[in-house]
Amino acid sequence: MQKLINPKRKEWDALCTRPSYSTESLTERVSEIIAMVEARGDKALIELSALLEGANLKNLAVSSSEIEEAKGSISEDLKKSIDLAISNLTTFHSRQIRPVEYITTSKGVTCWRKGVGMETVGLYIPGGSAPLFSTILMLGIPAKLAGCQNLILCTPPNASGTINSAILYAASILGIQQIFKVGGAQAIAAMAIGTETIPKVNKIFGPGNQYVTKAKELVSVRGTAIDMPAGPSEVLIIADESSVPSYVAADLLSQAEHGPDSQVILLSTSDEVLNETLCEVERQVMELPRSETAMKALDNSRGILLRTLDDCMQFSNIYAPEHLILAVEKASAYAEKVVNAGSVFLGNYSCESAGDYASGTNHTLPTNGFAKAYSGVSVDSFTKYITYQELSREGIQNIGPAIEIMAEAEGLLAHKRAVSIRLKDVQND
Amino acid sequence: MQKLINPKRKEWDALCTRPSYSTESLTERVSEIIAMVEARGDKALIELSALLEGANLKNLAVSSSEIEEAKGSISEDLKKSIDLAISNLTTFHSRQIRPVEYITTSKGVTCWRKGVGMETVGLYIPGGSAPLFSTILMLGIPAKLAGCQNLILCTPPNASGTINSAILYAASILGIQQIFKVGGAQAIAAMAIGTETIPKVNKIFGPGNQYVTKAKELVSVRGTAIDMPAGPSEVLIIADESSVPSYVAADLLSQAEHGPDSQVILLSTSDEVLNETLCEVERQVMELPRSETAMKALDNSRGILLRTLDDCMQFSNIYAPEHLILAVEKASAYAEKVVNAGSVFLGNYSCESAGDYASGTNHTLPTNGFAKAYSGVSVDSFTKYITYQELSREGIQNIGPAIEIMAEAEGLLAHKRAVSIRLKDVQND
Repeated sequence: MQKLINPKRKEWDALCTRPSYSTESLTERVSEIIAMVEARGDKALIELSALLEGANLKNLAVSSSEIEEAKGSISEDLKKSIDLAISNLTTFHSRQIRPVEYITTSKGVTCWRKGVGMETVGLYIPGGSAPLFSTILMLGIPAKLAGCQNLILCTPPNASGTINSAILYAASILGIQQIFKVGGAQAIAAMAIGTETIPKVNKIFGPGNQYVTKAKELVSVRGTAIDMPAGPSEVLIIADESSVPSYVAADLLSQAEHGPDSQVILLSTSDEVLNETLCEVERQVMELPRSETAMKALDNSRGILLRTLDDCMQFSNIYAPEHLILAVEKASAYAEKVVNAGSVFLGNYSCESAGDYASGTNHTLPTNGFAKAYSGVSVDSFTKYITYQELSREGIQNIGPAIEIMAEAEGLLAHKRAVSIRLKDVQND
Repeated sequence: MQKLINPKRKEWDALCTRPSYSTESLTERVSEIIAMVEARGDKALIELSALLEGANLKNLAVSSSEIEEAKGSISEDLKKSIDLAISNLTTFHSRQIRPVEYITTSKGVTCWRKGVGMETVGLYIPGGSAPLFSTILMLGIPAKLAGCQNLILCTPPNASGTINSAILYAASILGIQQIFKVGGAQAIAAMAIGTETIPKVNKIFGPGNQYVTKAKELVSVRGTAIDMPAGPSEVLIIADESSVPSYVAADLLSQAEHGPDSQVILLSTSDEVLNETLCEVERQVMELPRSETAMKALDNSRGILLRTLDDCMQFSNIYAPEHLILAVEKASAYAEKVVNAGSVFLGNYSCESAGDYASGTNHTLPTNGFAKAYSGVSVDSFTKYITYQELSREGIQNIGPAIEIMAEAEGLLAHKRAVSIRLKDVQND
């Protein structure tokens, strides 16, 4: 980690840059994959799976016997842990459902807004080094609460054509029945376009590598909604004299192990805490199985001494971190000053892992500074809000004349006439 | 309008297609404009304005004297009408603000979600044939309610370098102080990148022509959020025996006058109502100042007889209209069956114009079938929801072990250790 002492305000913008992360060069290859899926559907998916995962698939769909088998192979401890996570996620997310409220705006004019779950949504879960079954909970629970009818899950098989048991278990316990063995850009293409086996979806959710990210970008321009733009995971920790350096170091590393392009930032008002934490990071990283990955991420990372906690908050709001840990004594007071962040963790016991798995908040969050304009995944991410209005005769009498005047001022005379023709009848009655 | 009698179910998908609307060919030109603005800032904007609008601008910013002058030139009737619209829009949108709710998910684990307004948002208002000051209300009111700090408005000047008075009046009454004379793709580029005069924004809102649409698409891929993908405006009306053909015709035309690429769809269970409405359309269109535009839109449009109102609802949910008018006797019952639509109008007195101007709902809505996955603009469109969590010692004791087990199962040992290091201390105390 790079250490900086009281950098000047004008240097902050540069210190807030992320490791460069361009997917530009992938456009051609990913466009080819999308075109293959569009032209030849399932056949293209099976061929690509043989080529990329080395799997010889007969069926893309996971069978019910595969799911039963997976259930049997999960330890009771893991099942109970998943149950707890589901319970907390459900408690938190269910409060996001909004009741319909009828609002009288003018006499005789009633307006309301109703959330309706998207009919078919696609969840992508990467394979690779870490089987992210927790992401199934983070996407599946709000999707179910929103009332989505069809949940489609795509995840890549390993070379023997099978899927990680925990992934199958998590999906099945949420009632997700349509699980397909397909990964990468081709999975995103399949859900965006639809194939013989895989339904076309309204919106695609979930993390992935640069191929997946590029495919999501390309299909979103073609008209399939996506959860949010992607980028490597990141954490920013603000630590004062009350922080415990070994905890802060562990939190920095829990983020750094995600990938070599991850970034972790430590801001502190205490030179002592900063130095001790950086030493702890050096020490703890050696004990990790993924130490090589974490060390690469640390190369992109910074420990910065700043004069005041207000300076730290100002820096953090410019950086707009995906995860923000306020490891400070007056965490609640500083939480009020957060303007840009995905998810915020208060105090010494609120480690990022808690939000990653089981506190109840969602772990699908905006990275790469996108927290300035995007929110993490919530029930709303799976919901369309439809507005309604009903005007009575009195209603059109009350607001009709204003509509006529405004429509005329905009030069939209047919808009005016749609009101006039009604007002005439109402007044003649 | 094309008339169809009881088309078979398998023909419905084809009947739900929109007029083709490709901006692909514009990519090169719009990319050039973005590059110009990126390289030369304000200078590029002033040159482009001279080239495209024929305006010889000294300043991009609208001055306070221009705003004062505009205020003086607006009729009292129009001012009062705008006041009524603002009042109804504020009443409806203010109920979308969500209070913070603290939720205990497990003992010692408190989670909450807080809406924070985006700091800087950009509103684009097109010039051209219709000065859409109503759109300023539709974007400015929810932006203010969300708590956005800086509202930036861009709108093209006319050849004499001035802006329509109603646009300046509407902006000033909402307290929008940063108004710039810049239109088209270059306005979108300026707000996405920032220039000497125009601030860089977090998210861009507002309608526009194909250049604006393409520019929004291109800057969104570069990382600036946009309100939603664009497409021509549209209405679908469902009419039964109780409908008034002259009203339905007026509503179809109020949509058709928007542009030659607009589409209007009439579904009816009554052959008589269908025929009478189509005759009325022919008659009324001739009386419109924008009849030429409306007639072109009618060429893209369809009147379809279907057997039952349930069939009509099913068709409508496939079409996913921006505006849906339920001109049927039991409008409330059928409103319950809407799955995909932007905004719904119930009964004979709820014309689309009401929602366009003054009922209180937002008129910035998903077109082109995007209502399957997108909502219209609301306070949420200007809000980031940040999640928070605070674990006490008891909290980490309660959920820590589950986190350890799940993290280990995902192979993320540093995530596990961030919990273990705390649990060890807590248990040793």
